[in-house]
Amino acid sequence: MSAGAERRPADQKAGLNRVPTLAIDVMSGDLGARECVPGALLALAQAPDLQLELVGDPSVIEPLLSGAGAALRARAHIVPASDVVPMDELPRAAIRHRKASSMRIAIDRVKAGAASGCVSAGNTGALTAIAHFVLKTVPEVERAPIMSALPAAHGHAYMLDLGANITATAVQLLQFALMGSIVARDVYGVAEPRVGLLNIGEEDIKGHETVQAANALIAASGVRYLGFIEGDDIFSGEVDVVVTDGFTGNVALKSMEGLARLITATMRAEFMRSIGSRAAAILARPVLKRVGATLDPRRYNGACMVGLRGVVVKSHGSADRMAFARAIEIARTAAIHDIPGCVARALATETRQGS
Amino acid sequence: MSAGAERRPADQKAGLNRVPTLAIDVMSGDLGARECVPGALLALAQAPDLQLELVGDPSVIEPLLSGAGAALRARAHIVPASDVVPMDELPRAAIRHRKASSMRIAIDRVKAGAASGCVSAGNTGALTAIAHFVLKTVPEVERAPIMSALPAAHGHAYMLDLGANITATAVQLLQFALMGSIVARDVYGVAEPRVGLLNIGEEDIKGHETVQAANALIAASGVRYLGFIEGDDIFSGEVDVVVTDGFTGNVALKSMEGLARLITATMRAEFMRSIGSRAAAILARPVLKRVGATLDPRRYNGACMVGLRGVVVKSHGSADRMAFARAIEIARTAAIHDIPGCVARALATETRQGS
Repeated sequence: MSAGAERRPADQKAGLNRVPTLAIDVMSGDLGARECVPGALLALAQAPDLQLELVGDPSVIEPLLSGAGAALRARAHIVPASDVVPMDELPRAAIRHRKASSMRIAIDRVKAGAASGCVSAGNTGALTAIAHFVLKTVPEVERAPIMSALPAAHGHAYMLDLGANITATAVQLLQFALMGSIVARDVYGVAEPRVGLLNIGEEDIKGHETVQAANALIAASGVRYLGFIEGDDIFSGEVDVVVTDGFTGNVALKSMEGLARLITATMRAEFMRSIGSRAAAILARPVLKRVGATLDPRRYNGACMVGLRGVVVKSHGSADRMAFARAIEIARTAAIHDIPGCVARALATETRQGS
Repeated sequence: MSAGAERRPADQKAGLNRVPTLAIDVMSGDLGARECVPGALLALAQAPDLQLELVGDPSVIEPLLSGAGAALRARAHIVPASDVVPMDELPRAAIRHRKASSMRIAIDRVKAGAASGCVSAGNTGALTAIAHFVLKTVPEVERAPIMSALPAAHGHAYMLDLGANITATAVQLLQFALMGSIVARDVYGVAEPRVGLLNIGEEDIKGHETVQAANALIAASGVRYLGFIEGDDIFSGEVDVVVTDGFTGNVALKSMEGLARLITATMRAEFMRSIGSRAAAILARPVLKRVGATLDPRRYNGACMVGLRGVVVKSHGSADRMAFARAIEIARTAAIHDIPGCVARALATETRQGS
């Protein structure tokens, strides 16, 4: 899209990956290779400059590539992996026992410099743990926050941290604001991202010490800062980057998912209640489908783990091929813009100015 | 409903307010007396044992009572108040300058023992501040958490704290669990409330120290405890009392409100998009109306401030008469069950056992 226009001269000088290679764990997620491999082919079709390493069992991957044209096939390179991280594996066990897994090898390819980013639809806890263990964070970051798009009026908002960290200091919230701005601009194409810090709305108690301190730090930083926002502002269309600690962010995200499911279930039950309402359902179906598509979080598939020394994108576990291709596109854009390098430089600058 | 059956002998011996008088601030909220006074009359019609003090400007209240039958009218007593707390008044200013307001006088009536509870649709910050200033909390409680019903599968969940406190210690979270159980049972009629503690879902990081400590405390208490739950469990119908700190609770609540508004706006836009979709909208309207009614938070109007030395119920600012009557019914039930006394006894017992 506007990626070319947005790229800054400094990045170009740094010799950025103009023809990025990404390592794709095609064996994980609820649907595994049968959606991940077609998703990878879709991503290749959409981006002629892209090279993909499909990491997994060649005997599973090969047949799924058979229908692809020679031009696509030439950019899909199989990297064998004999194991898969189960969806219920504990993170520590995954680090210790899954060295031959598609997830681990995809991340290893980034570490080795063979790939400039990786994507997996696997077990979030394992992916987070292995990514931190193998790639490490940039110097100032303790644990990489997770950032993802949410539906909002007239577009989306991008929220972090969605649960990688369980608490956040004021300095970490400042880092989230800085990193979130970079990712919103370079990965999601928001020209001048407006940043808000989540707080509670009681007039007499404008939040605890940590958000108070973070408020001052972010206001003094270079980001375009709107100040405190409340939970309902996430969806207002008036903020691009929503900053919060991983505990609050995760609870809010899951609450929204739960509410969306309840609304869907209630609508289904009410539409099935009588002959009249079933007739209405048939007529309303295309409209409700469009509403569902607009709000479906999978449409915005691809959560970034920001602050690692490499691009790691988490796809939703139940992503279909379209959604998985979208996650690969996110990783491609992040790799082209060298998000890990941009983040490291921005945090180093901020640290120098702060000290 | 089953309030009579649920009342415990101890409460009856304590000489509870079997014919409660409630002080109603009928001048506040977005709609003021023209919805609050009819709402009060509705509540009187629904509860033959109820006496209400309608606090406000007699010249405004009198005409609104003119249509009421003599039997209802005999149970609606006007208590004059010459002032109203504005919706944007800062809490401290409200304490200092609004001693003649309907909100303050309604709370003063509770303090004086003339009323066994009060209801206001006014400024939340001012109501919280004045209620704490005038009534004080029971000994163990620092600041009364706010508890309210949320829609859930097959009924509701009751969540606290929704924003009165900006942080919560492990002991406070335990108190929320104890108070929430009492209110869910005695006010909302849940026979044996199941309590869950909100936490984040990453497998390797089961929350910060505070929720870890609270988890142990609640597990050792007498409440029916399910352990940690995640944000989406709020709506699952499998938990009755959702315990969290006021920061997380407020952000989650407001996020859900924002999402619900976004969904409503998106549906409206999609149904208006074409002639076909407008036709579908006409047919679907009764169904969507039922969905809206099921999920409308105003249906569950009446948030309890729990842990004060008196019953204080906050009505939604935009409550109509039906919703306002519902908030009065909540206060009536809380007063009949002497929630402040039950809470004080439960916390004192817990403190003794804990020490």
